[in-house]
This record gives sequence, structure tokens and C-alpha cells, in this order.
Amino acid sequence: MREALLLGPGPSNVPASVLAALARPTIGHLDPEFLALMDGLQSGLRAVFRTANRLTIAVSGTGSAGMEALLTNLVEPRERILVCVNGVFGGRAAELCRRLGADAVELTFPWGRPVDPAAVGEALDRSAAKTLFFVHAETSTGALSDAAAIAAAGREHGALVVMDCVTSLGGLPVEIDAWGIDAAFSGTQKCLSVPPGLAPVTLGERALARMDARMAPLPSWYFDLGLVRRYWGPDRTYHHTAPVNMLYALAAALREIAGEGLPARFERHATAHAQLVAGLAALGLSLVPPEGARLPMLNCVRVPDRVDEAAVRAALHARHDIEIGAGLGELRGKVWRIGLMGENAREGVVRRFLAALSEELRRHAASRPA
Amino acid sequence: MREALLLGPGPSNVPASVLAALARPTIGHLDPEFLALMDGLQSGLRAVFRTANRLTIAVSGTGSAGMEALLTNLVEPRERILVCVNGVFGGRAAELCRRLGADAVELTFPWGRPVDPAAVGEALDRSAAKTLFFVHAETSTGALSDAAAIAAAGREHGALVVMDCVTSLGGLPVEIDAWGIDAAFSGTQKCLSVPPGLAPVTLGERALARMDARMAPLPSWYFDLGLVRRYWGPDRTYHHTAPVNMLYALAAALREIAGEGLPARFERHATAHAQLVAGLAALGLSLVPPEGARLPMLNCVRVPDRVDEAAVRAALHARHDIEIGAGLGELRGKVWRIGLMGENAREGVVRRFLAALSEELRRHAASRPA
Repeated sequence: MREALLLGPGPSNVPASVLAALARPTIGHLDPEFLALMDGLQSGLRAVFRTANRLTIAVSGTGSAGMEALLTNLVEPRERILVCVNGVFGGRAAELCRRLGADAVELTFPWGRPVDPAAVGEALDRSAAKTLFFVHAETSTGALSDAAAIAAAGREHGALVVMDCVTSLGGLPVEIDAWGIDAAFSGTQKCLSVPPGLAPVTLGERALARMDARMAPLPSWYFDLGLVRRYWGPDRTYHHTAPVNMLYALAAALREIAGEGLPARFERHATAHAQLVAGLAALGLSLVPPEGARLPMLNCVRVPDRVDEAAVRAALHARHDIEIGAGLGELRGKVWRIGLMGENAREGVVRRFLAALSEELRRHAASRPA
Repeated sequence: MREALLLGPGPSNVPASVLAALARPTIGHLDPEFLALMDGLQSGLRAVFRTANRLTIAVSGTGSAGMEALLTNLVEPRERILVCVNGVFGGRAAELCRRLGADAVELTFPWGRPVDPAAVGEALDRSAAKTLFFVHAETSTGALSDAAAIAAAGREHGALVVMDCVTSLGGLPVEIDAWGIDAAFSGTQKCLSVPPGLAPVTLGERALARMDARMAPLPSWYFDLGLVRRYWGPDRTYHHTAPVNMLYALAAALREIAGEGLPARFERHATAHAQLVAGLAALGLSLVPPEGARLPMLNCVRVPDRVDEAAVRAALHARHDIEIGAGLGELRGKVWRIGLMGENAREGVVRRFLAALSEELRRHAASRPA
């Protein structure tokens, strides 16, 4: 299989050390050595989430499983939840809440725009929702929202605050405790530089109290965090067989992140982003989100009018071994999504990409009928 | 980390070729090369499930996620389902069905005994259940049930037949089409010799028709097989990011299994089991399930009266690098569970284990007060 430079919305490239950890011999999911690894992994996750939350673990599924685990445990039928929607993933959360029988009120924003904290406050006034859901980093549009201000609005109104930080975790500051986030989830295949398959989650005391006070039966057994936490906690009660090798990989990646240090890692993402934006501007390309609300690790770029977006993507892949992402939803066919995540947030990577894109733009100028 | 011989209820040891596949560089989940790998993987799964079912895929979670994916999609609130319970995993299925709002009728059998097909027929007469659930190979007791006869009883009564073959798949004959099983799920960490983290599932036309006719909303998004199948099928519609590297590993393992051939593989499991049973008998040890209803790959052995079961397990691990399993539920403290799964169903492995057990039984004779 050919190796590619993964500059799409994830998965991103995985460092050799993490791949090596993935391939270590499997041991038992109740082996004391493995349980010690899980303890270290929980500490490592607390460090990247910037939280003291005891319940900070990796759910055995991809990022979407993290969303489902949190909402399934925290939302009851007929309860109102305010879901901020400024792209695909807010919409997915609202859909899941409806499936769970909740009264999901959507607060929508134009695609590419951040969630407006003032609008969230007003909507909470009107809706009296018990729970607030928002996406920190919208992977479908590249928009960054002000999580601290949104969470403050939520707490002011007494709402439990649930955050999607799938794309931001490990690439820009995520401050669970300082921002007052009650529960958050992420994925491993973005800025943590681990293959897809695990969903880091963290739940604070208010979220645990919500779980304890739940009246309706949980319509899931696999995602029952009340049971899952007994395996991750001191009891070690068997729930399901842990995905041993994927957890090796996550533990190794967290050690790498600790070695680099979060400030240096965030700086690296910011620098690579600035370099990319400057290079794109030189090619006459612009980003969808406004300045100040752009994700460093996921750049949503408008495709020039006369250029065939799919042809350029295919050529980047076929001729340069570079994968970038297509648009989703209402941005389909209109944008490219260029990820600079984890290992790929580096000057050399950006330079290689810009050279390839520049070449393909020349080859594909006027590739689409006017 | 120390390498151990994994002779518990799973995970079992993973061959070097599969670990090497696991560590291949991650590529995009929509990369044509990856999509081709997924196609091959589906063919490989159809071969081990012995089915022509189009919808034969790996769910992105452990074996328990396979159970949840099937029951969530196939069971509606207030519908009656007959759940055969002869160990932990039947009980888990009944609990999940209740959580899903279904009317779960439990048909119980003594632990260690197989499910009785005649009793299933009578219970279906009485209950008029729309769905029948049973476990082919009960990992908690080592009991093998007659899947063909149970499925026949189910179909005779017009019930949709759902089977748990987590422990049997790849180690003894599983005949989805010949037996008339409508839906089945498994896990990768038993006889397929892949690390835990994926759940192979297969659904036939009657199961798909049940999904299509469903009235109640699905209380899950992650496990919505109607959406998941559009990613695995020709549409390739994005649902969630596939666990790329785990799928590499499963594809590699399926190629190994195809190379060995299922008959040879089953023969290997049967031979290793016979060798183990003879060796245990020579040590004065007996199995919980009756002859004719014993799993070759999971041997549930009575602990002698005066022997401290936990001490022997710990000594096997500490002094011989061998992991075996403890009893679950009502067999806790009373049995050892000895797995000979996939790679470990080999004469040399059994010999090594019997030598170690024999030594530790001598050391631990009368280790427990009478």
C-alpha cells in the first residue's frame, strides 16, 4: 500500500513510534501491566484536556462514538437540549439527540461562521434548555468558536455544557476546567496523531451527578459510562474487552505530546497555519471562515470559479501522494479542506503541499466550464 | 512490556503478520486503495461466516458493539424477543433488549449446559416472539449449543434468528446460510487472532427487511446500520471515520485464514482441545459442560476443592507467562477458563500449558483451607 501525506480532515499521519506501539504483542485486558498502562493513559488524557476530572478515558470507538457515549448518558427523553449548529457535526449531534427522544432545539449559524456566545445566551433564556451542546472546532467548515465564552453562557443559565473537541484537542488550547466544560469528547485521528478508532472523553462532577440522577433507562449497554468507568476505575470490573493495541498507540502518542509540551505543539500548529494561509494568498486563494475564527489544523479553502475541485484533489493524490478533503454538506464542490494536524503541522509539509497545489492549479486552470 | 501466552477467554495471541499489518502507515478512509481493502475484507468475512449476505462488515467497536449494533437495529420497543440465557452473554443480550424497550423473555438453562432446541421451540409457541437470540459458544461456561437446530426452531416459528458467535467464528464451523441465521456478530480477539476492537457482523435479507420496516426511531447514530452500510457499499457515503489500521489487521488475518483453509483450522482447534482434555483428565481435572457440548476453543475447568484458583492463575502468569481466565458470574472462583483460540490451538502450546499447570497444581495442592 502506498504511503500518502494525509492533509485532509483526518486521519492524519501517524509517527513511526506510535505505529510501533500499535504493533506490540497483545496482552490481556485485565493484565496488571495493561491496567498500569491504562492509568498512565488517563493521566495523559487529563493533561491534554487540561482537567482534573477523574472520569477521563478513551471510549472504544471512533470520535462519533465519543459523541454518542456522552449524549446517550447525559440526555434524557423529552428533556430540552440547545444544540449549536454551524456545520455538519452540530447537525449530527442534534439528530442524535432527537433519536434519543430529547427535545433538541437547534441554534443555527451560517456555515463557516463561529457560534456566537451572545446568541447562545439569548437562546438559553428563551429555551430554558437543561443542556448545551457545541462544537469547538467545526471540521466541516474550519470555523473556531470561542469555547470559553460559550461555556460561560451555558453555566450562567445553569445548563450542562457538552463540547465536541474532536479536531481541536492536541492542536490548539482546550481548557476543560478553566472554561467550565462539563463533558467533552474527541477522536484520536486528528491532532493526537493516532489511527482512528478511539474517542477520548472527559466528564466532570456535574456531568456525573446528571448521570446519577437519570430516570430513564439508558438505551445502550456498550456506551453505559456508569459501567465503563468501573473497568477504568479501581474496581476493574469487566465490561467489554478493551481495544488493547489501539490503547498502546494512544498511550505512546500521549507520551510524545507530553515530551513536546502543549505550548510548543500549539505554536507549531499556529505557525504552519500562518505559513499555509500566506502561501494560499499568494496563489489567490482565500479561506471560508473570517480571520480570528479560523482553525489552524483544518483550513477550508474556496475553490476558484473555473477550477474543477475534484480533478485537483485527484491529481494531488495521484501525482503527489497528497490527500486533501472535499467539502461536506452545503460546501460540497465549493471548497477544499486542508488539514495540518499533529505530525503534519510542520514547515516542510506546508512547503511540499503549496508546491504541489501551485503546480496542479496551473495544470487545472480553467478546468471547469464557465 | 512482557509477552504472554494468552490462554484466557480472549484476547488471544496475534501472529506477527497481523501485528505488522496493524502497523502499516495509516491512509485515508476514503482512499481508493483503502476502499479496495474493505471490499476484500468483506469477501473474507463472508467466507468465514459462510454466507452470501451482502451486508457483511466489521462494526467499529469490540464484540459487544456487534451485539449492540444488531439488537439496536433489529428490535423495536414493546416487541417481544426470546433470549436464550445459559451464561453471561445471553444475560447481557436480555439486559440490552430491556434497555431498548423490548419485551425480553428469558429462556434460561443451567450454566455450563447448552441451549435446548426443543425448549426453544416450546418457548416460541408460548411467547410468539418476533425475534430469537442465542449464543452459539458461551464464553463464560464453555458450552456449545446446536445452532442449526436452534435456528430451525426459530424459523419454523417465523422468528428472526440472531446469533452471537463471538467465540466460535474461525474456530469451529459457523454456517450462517446453511443454518438459516438471519443476523450474527462476532469479535476479532478470539479465533480470528486479531487484537480486540472490531465486531464482524452479517445480516441477511430478512434482517434487512426488518430494518426497513422499522417504525420506531433508532436510539443510536453510531450503530445505525442503514447509514453504516452506505459507507461499506458502493455509495461510500461518509458516516464515521473507519478504524483504518484495525481493518488492515483484520484483512491480513482473513487472508491467513483463507490460506490455511477453514476445515484445517477447525481440525487444529479440535485436536488441540482433545489433547488438552486428555491432559487435564490425567491431572484429575474435569470440564463443566457435558461431552458433546464442549467448545474446543474455550475450556471451562473445575478447580479442585483444596486449590486456591486465583493463586494458581497468578502463578501461571508470574512464573510461566501464561494467562488463563477466571470464572464469571455464578462460576466465579469455581473454574478456570482455558482458551485455545486461533494461533494458540497448537500441540506445542497445549504441551507447554499442561506442564506449567501440572507444576503449579503440585505447588498449590491444599493451598485453600478445607
